Amino acid sequence: MTLAYDGTAYAGWQIQPGAPTIQGAMEEAIGAIAGEPVRVHCSGRTDTGVHARAQVAHFDVSKRPALPRLLAGLNATLPVDIRVLSMTRAAPDFHARRHATGKQYRYHIWNGRIVPPFVRTYRAHVARPLDIPAMRAAADVLLGEHDFAAYSANPNRDVASTVRDLRILRVARKGNEVILVAESNGFLYRMVRSLAGYLIRAGLGELSAADGREILESRVRTAAIPTAPPQGLFLWKVYY
Amino acid sequence: MTLAYDGTAYAGWQIQPGAPTIQGAMEEAIGAIAGEPVRVHCSGRTDTGVHARAQVAHFDVSKRPALPRLLAGLNATLPVDIRVLSMTRAAPDFHARRHATGKQYRYHIWNGRIVPPFVRTYRAHVARPLDIPAMRAAADVLLGEHDFAAYSANPNRDVASTVRDLRILRVARKGNEVILVAESNGFLYRMVRSLAGYLIRAGLGELSAADGREILESRVRTAAIPTAPPQGLFLWKVYY
Repeated sequence: MTLAYDGTAYAGWQIQPGAPTIQGAMEEAIGAIAGEPVRVHCSGRTDTGVHARAQVAHFDVSKRPALPRLLAGLNATLPVDIRVLSMTRAAPDFHARRHATGKQYRYHIWNGRIVPPFVRTYRAHVARPLDIPAMRAAADVLLGEHDFAAYSANPNRDVASTVRDLRILRVARKGNEVILVAESNGFLYRMVRSLAGYLIRAGLGELSAADGREILESRVRTAAIPTAPPQGLFLWKVYY
Repeated sequence: MTLAYDGTAYAGWQIQPGAPTIQGAMEEAIGAIAGEPVRVHCSGRTDTGVHARAQVAHFDVSKRPALPRLLAGLNATLPVDIRVLSMTRAAPDFHARRHATGKQYRYHIWNGRIVPPFVRTYRAHVARPLDIPAMRAAADVLLGEHDFAAYSANPNRDVASTVRDLRILRVARKGNEVILVAESNGFLYRMVRSLAGYLIRAGLGELSAADGREILESRVRTAAIPTAPPQGLFLWKVYY
């Protein structure tokens, strides 16, 4: 199934006691309709406050449900900040995380003095003007297959290798909006927000493309790379 | 000053005990900075849950404040769902409500099966397809100067006359978004949401342009005209 959610009110995807989570809400809603406990697996866990335009997730149930009815029932049961956009029957061995071949994230920045109230939970705020050509130059040096340990927080969490193939890292401006598009065969923990933190500093003239390349090659995360705030980040697309 | 606010968390503009209001938040913030009690007057009070892209308001203070500093101070003090976009010193007799010569409101509808979570507090939801040409025909019969008592709730509240000059009533579609634009020398209580309720019924084939004209001429509000929900409504522009 494909899910969209506003992460503002949630402590991220992963279920945990005493905190509202996307996984918790999904498992409760599906479990109530299916009449059995259900485990829901997603393509990649999103952090506290991070949004998804099109997260992909799967689950197994013992009976074959009528999908249009299940989709309508889930959207009637789930809180309005989580929506099931589509459902399809998957191959028995399909796994939303293990079979993903790539992902696209987008990071949205409001680059202006005053953030309009209507986008305040969907944009990071950078008041000073960002230099887009400088950000593009800083992005280009990271493209391709590299060890991205320096652009991740706690890089060895759950992964055997910190090498990733960064296929796209694009910077676009539309008025006061600056949008970063990142596509890779996979992302490390907090990698997109670290790339955003680096690109924002580059846009403010605080880091150069040469700095970015040097930090990459050091393979060590330092304070030079801040983690940009979660509310600007959207899981945009998952490839299979 | 020009204000933008997300009305979701507020019981409308007008101050009232025990409920968060835009006026209350403004008077508290300005009063704290000015060091004296301040009354804030707006161009027209918005209802519970209604938004403003550009509300205009004025207030009097005994000392001449430095405006850029006051604006920055207010945005630092106010909750993030209310922003002061601009401030200017007005003529001593200026009155935000009495001197307004016209207003534009926009009403936003999500016309599709599933409302994306990111716009859920800014769109009314109509799942069945709306017939845009039928809505345009229904809008056209209301244009011009008429007694709009039938398109208002409690039409005599606070007003001597229920005659208004409806200059614009436009219907536009952009994908799943349907946007209604209404401009008049003034609007009666709940008039825009009544016009939206009428146009939605017209778009669903439940009312014709002839019905709309007949209801207008009756000057009596009936159950045929529903009040559309508040979250789709934005005060868009005020003319002076």
